[in-house]
Amino acid sequence: MNAHSRNATASQDLEARLMAIGAERYHDKHPFHHKLHSGQCTPDQVRAWVINRWAYQAAIPMKDAAFLSRCSDPQMRREWRSRIEDHDGDIDAGGGIRRWLKLAEAVGLDPDYVASGRGVLPATQFAVDAYIRYVRDMPLLEAVASSLTELFAPSIHERRIEGMLQHYDFANAESMSYFKKRLTEAPKDVKFGLAWVLDHADTPEKQDAACGALIFKTNVLWAQLDALWGAYVEPGRIPPGAWQPGEGMA
Amino acid sequence: MNAHSRNATASQDLEARLMAIGAERYHDKHPFHHKLHSGQCTPDQVRAWVINRWAYQAAIPMKDAAFLSRCSDPQMRREWRSRIEDHDGDIDAGGGIRRWLKLAEAVGLDPDYVASGRGVLPATQFAVDAYIRYVRDMPLLEAVASSLTELFAPSIHERRIEGMLQHYDFANAESMSYFKKRLTEAPKDVKFGLAWVLDHADTPEKQDAACGALIFKTNVLWAQLDALWGAYVEPGRIPPGAWQPGEGMA
Repeated sequence: MNAHSRNATASQDLEARLMAIGAERYHDKHPFHHKLHSGQCTPDQVRAWVINRWAYQAAIPMKDAAFLSRCSDPQMRREWRSRIEDHDGDIDAGGGIRRWLKLAEAVGLDPDYVASGRGVLPATQFAVDAYIRYVRDMPLLEAVASSLTELFAPSIHERRIEGMLQHYDFANAESMSYFKKRLTEAPKDVKFGLAWVLDHADTPEKQDAACGALIFKTNVLWAQLDALWGAYVEPGRIPPGAWQPGEGMA
Repeated sequence: MNAHSRNATASQDLEARLMAIGAERYHDKHPFHHKLHSGQCTPDQVRAWVINRWAYQAAIPMKDAAFLSRCSDPQMRREWRSRIEDHDGDIDAGGGIRRWLKLAEAVGLDPDYVASGRGVLPATQFAVDAYIRYVRDMPLLEAVASSLTELFAPSIHERRIEGMLQHYDFANAESMSYFKKRLTEAPKDVKFGLAWVLDHADTPEKQDAACGALIFKTNVLWAQLDALWGAYVEPGRIPPGAWQPGEGMA
């Protein structure tokens, strides 16, 4: 086997390992998503999800700015910058995070309350902040690899759009526009990120590091749904200071 | 009212606010502690607590080193340094974290497994890491105020020692030595920290900031018990990769 085909095999192996991590650990496996997409969430459970997932949405452009802040390759920064543009958008039109607030309005919440971040579960904020810091502080390979959960995002977004349109009155083209838009944005981003990781993880140690980064990121996502479940589903014990049903309504 | 008595009143008011935060939010109110101290935890639930709380114990000397690393007052560093000494101890004898591993052994766990940090719930690690970073990055007043949960620690440690000695076979003077020791260490530390906060929080904004720091810290502690409850009590869904009963036994 020559060096080229050895590299091609290592790259295929790593891609298979990354896909297996998603198959085992991505948060589409979490029961909260089954509940949400099959119409079994109460209106307050949907609201709790919208409020808490806001903390994650709002952090994404900060995470990507943290990435740019430590990336010394201008060509890579040019590729990566569109992620901030997708989420923040233009001054007048806004972007992904403004589309998230459309969903907040549709479920009866005051978008200013949601945007304030008050009421977010501390466990959610700890997870989200851990992600920003990871991308800022870890080696570039891990920072890129931690974004690869987007490999698995389009299929969960498709199921979400279909399930929510079918089961919830508030779901329509406008309130679901965040997810609709991500169907085209995420594949574009992840195509670049995956190719970069496969190209740069050229030793077994780096391949393990890339897998570790993807596991870290699946933990960030999973921990948010566990916190949501504990506070608003079962046992339904809301931690001191977190959103109480009835608060923050439009 | 002269300036001196105005200051004394403001200081008493702040102390009362800090005590009220503890009364409402300290983790002695969390049902996991009621369960633990009243002998209602299964051996595996006790083990899960020992494994996860290790992540917190192990982080304390790093948190205090982060504090020293940004404290420019040598006198204050001299006061604070004993916290690291209490937890790390001498090379031969060890300190608080080694005493924690005695507890791990007593409940049948391999202390090396516990010390490795493998199996810790991601949500616990996110909370603990948030605490280290808070102390490293926030203004000094908030860094000190976040330590004031120690105001409430001796009474929970007393209840824990008494309850665990009464209800669990593994509990004895050696396995409970961590908590026994904290009964004298924590009051010494918190006496200095509280006096410093009351002295330096000399505007309403700083008083609010000190209260915010204590709330942050109660969230760090509460989130750990929520994660433990969700994974090992109710619904008892262990996140991917976290400790499974049977793993890491001596």
